[in-house]
Amino acid sequence: MPTTVKAFGAHDVRQPLVPLTIERRDVGPHDVKLDILYCGICHSDMNFVGGEFGPLPTSPLIPGHEIVGRVAETGSAVTRHQVGDLVGIGCMVNSCRECENCRAGQEQYCLNGHTLVFGNPDPAEPGTHTQGGYSEAIVAPEDFVVRVPDSLDPAAAAPLLCAGITVYAPLKRYGAAPGTKVAIGGLGGLGHLGVKMAKAMGAEVTVLSQSDRKREAAAALGADHYAVTGDGSAFTDLANTFDIILNTVSAPVAIKDYLGMLRLHGTMVSVGVTTQPMPLDVFPLLQNGRAYAGSLFGGIAETQEMLDFAAEHGVTAEIELIGAQDINTAYERILASDVRYRFVIDGATFAELKA
Amino acid sequence: MPTTVKAFGAHDVRQPLVPLTIERRDVGPHDVKLDILYCGICHSDMNFVGGEFGPLPTSPLIPGHEIVGRVAETGSAVTRHQVGDLVGIGCMVNSCRECENCRAGQEQYCLNGHTLVFGNPDPAEPGTHTQGGYSEAIVAPEDFVVRVPDSLDPAAAAPLLCAGITVYAPLKRYGAAPGTKVAIGGLGGLGHLGVKMAKAMGAEVTVLSQSDRKREAAAALGADHYAVTGDGSAFTDLANTFDIILNTVSAPVAIKDYLGMLRLHGTMVSVGVTTQPMPLDVFPLLQNGRAYAGSLFGGIAETQEMLDFAAEHGVTAEIELIGAQDINTAYERILASDVRYRFVIDGATFAELKA
Repeated sequence: MPTTVKAFGAHDVRQPLVPLTIERRDVGPHDVKLDILYCGICHSDMNFVGGEFGPLPTSPLIPGHEIVGRVAETGSAVTRHQVGDLVGIGCMVNSCRECENCRAGQEQYCLNGHTLVFGNPDPAEPGTHTQGGYSEAIVAPEDFVVRVPDSLDPAAAAPLLCAGITVYAPLKRYGAAPGTKVAIGGLGGLGHLGVKMAKAMGAEVTVLSQSDRKREAAAALGADHYAVTGDGSAFTDLANTFDIILNTVSAPVAIKDYLGMLRLHGTMVSVGVTTQPMPLDVFPLLQNGRAYAGSLFGGIAETQEMLDFAAEHGVTAEIELIGAQDINTAYERILASDVRYRFVIDGATFAELKA
Repeated sequence: MPTTVKAFGAHDVRQPLVPLTIERRDVGPHDVKLDILYCGICHSDMNFVGGEFGPLPTSPLIPGHEIVGRVAETGSAVTRHQVGDLVGIGCMVNSCRECENCRAGQEQYCLNGHTLVFGNPDPAEPGTHTQGGYSEAIVAPEDFVVRVPDSLDPAAAAPLLCAGITVYAPLKRYGAAPGTKVAIGGLGGLGHLGVKMAKAMGAEVTVLSQSDRKREAAAALGADHYAVTGDGSAFTDLANTFDIILNTVSAPVAIKDYLGMLRLHGTMVSVGVTTQPMPLDVFPLLQNGRAYAGSLFGGIAETQEMLDFAAEHGVTAEIELIGAQDINTAYERILASDVRYRFVIDGATFAELKA
C-alpha cells in the first residue's frame, strides 16, 4: 500500500517551496523503503526549481538527491540491505542495467537514460515521476541504495552522495595520489570536498579562487596552497604545475588560462555545469599533451567505494543543519554564497510541517 | 670546417622556393653528419613559407623535418651512431635536456623550448639558425638522431619522422589496441598513417571524411569502415561508438558533434593545428566522461619506438617521390589536395640544382 509522507517542494518554477503531502509507492519485491534522516541541498536542486532546466517536469516537484536514511522496510527479494541499516541514495534510482555503460558499472552514463531520484518518469510505477529527498521517506530499488558506514556522521555524510562522488570519481580516474599536484577550482559544496578527497588520496592540493577571501578557509580544510585567479597572476605563476585541475565552478572559465597550468599530460576536468559554450583554442592542449575532460557524478559501485574511502579517511562535508521550514531561506543564502559549505535538512523536521 | 651544401629554400614568405647554397657547421664532438637520402614535405613546412606563422625567422629558410639519411661523419664523443648507419631526424634537433618534460623523455614539450630542425636559433652555433632537410646534408646532435630499421623503405619511412610519430604517440597513449574502436578524422598525410598505425595496433578503424570521395582509398589502406561527416548523419549513426577519435584536420571542426561519437571514457585528440578558437559546450564532455586532448609529435625515445614498431608491422607512408626542382609544384598540389599521401624529395637531386 502506498504511504503518505510529508515533503517540501515546488508547484512551479521560480516559486517558493511549500510544505506538501505526497504518496510513496508500495515497497516492491526489489525495493527498500528508507526513513530519511538527512538530505543535502545541492545547487542543481535549485536549477530545477529556478527554471534553469526549463519547466518543472512534474508538479509538484520534490527536490533532494543527497539522502541518508535508515532502512524501514525491505521487499521480499531484497538481499543487499536489512531493516535498520544506515544507507544512502544519490542522484539516480534506476538505469537500463543492460547498455555497455551500465554493464561497466557507470550507470550515470546509461545510454538509455538513467532515472534521476526526482523529476523523472519512474519505471517502477509507470505514469508517475520520481520525487526526491526533501521528505520523510522514500522507496527505491535496492541496487541504487548504498551502504553508509556507521563511522560516518550521517548528517555530514549526506552531501557525499552527490558532491562527494562527483569529485571523488574524476580525482581517482585521473590519478590523484601521493606525488601528484591537484588544483581545485572553486571552494563551494563540491570544491571543499574536492580538497578533502584529494588530500585523502595523498595529493598536494592548491585551491584556486577568484579572490583572497577564502584563503583561511582553504587552509582549514587542509589545502597546501591557495592561489588567486582574479588578477590573472596565478595563471603565470603556476604555469605547467598541476597533474589535475578539478574545476567545480558552474560558470564559464577562461579554459586557455586554466589549461596553461597543467604539467605534462595533465587533465583539467569540469564537474560544474554551465550552458554557455566557451571558446577553445587547440594550442594549449597541444603543449604538454594536455586534456580537458568532463565527469558526471559516478556509478553505484563507485559511490559505495567512495563512501568506504570516506569512512577510512574520515572525510565528510562541512555542513549547516537546518529544519525543513528553512529550505527557502537556505536557497537564498546559497545564491548569496553564504554557506560553508553545504546545507543539510534534518529529516525529523518534515513531520512538524503543516501541509 | 663548415661544409657547403646545396639546398632549396625561401628568401621570404609567400615567395617560391629557390635553389641555394648553405653552410653546415663543423661536426662537433657530440654531432653526427648525415648525407640526406630523403626528406618528406609536411604541411607545416608550407605554413612557415606561406607566412601563416609570421615573418620568416631567418632568411633564407630551408624547410624540411622528415629526414632519412646515412651517417657520413661522427664526432669524437659519439656513441649512438656509426658511419654508414641509416638514421632519421624529425622535428627537433635539441632541447634543454634538464626540465621535467625532457627528463620524462618528452622533449617535444621542453619547458625551455625545444630547437626545431629549421628556423630556430641553434644552441650548437650561437648566432645562426637551424636549417632543415631540403638539402644535401645536415649536422645534428646524436641524441636527436634516431635509427631507421634497415627493413623499412627509406623513402617511404621519411614521413614517419613527423607524421608517423604524430599519430603513433596519441594512439598509443590513449590505448589503441585489439578490442578498441578508433576513428581517424581526415585522410591526408597524417590520417593515412593514422589508419595504418591504428590497424597495426589491432584496433577497429573507421575513417571519417567530409565526402564519399576517399572511401576506396580508405579501404585500400586497411580501414574497416568509412563514414561521411559532411551531411551530419555520421554523428548520429556513430553516437557513443569510439574509444579514440584522432582528429588530423588542420581546420576548426564541430567539436560537439565529434565528442558525441565517443563511447564511455573516450578521448578525442587533435594533432592538426588550427589557430581559430572553437566553441566548446561542456555537456558532451560530461556525458560518457569524455575528454578532448591535444598531442604534439613525440619524444626521441618514443620516435625510436615508433620506427621499430613500424618495421615490425611493415608500416610506411604512401609516397610520391619527387626531385628537388619540383618542390614548388608539390606545394601547389598539396594545397589542391592532389597527393596520396605524402611527397618525398629524393636527396640525390639537390646536387643537380643550379644555385
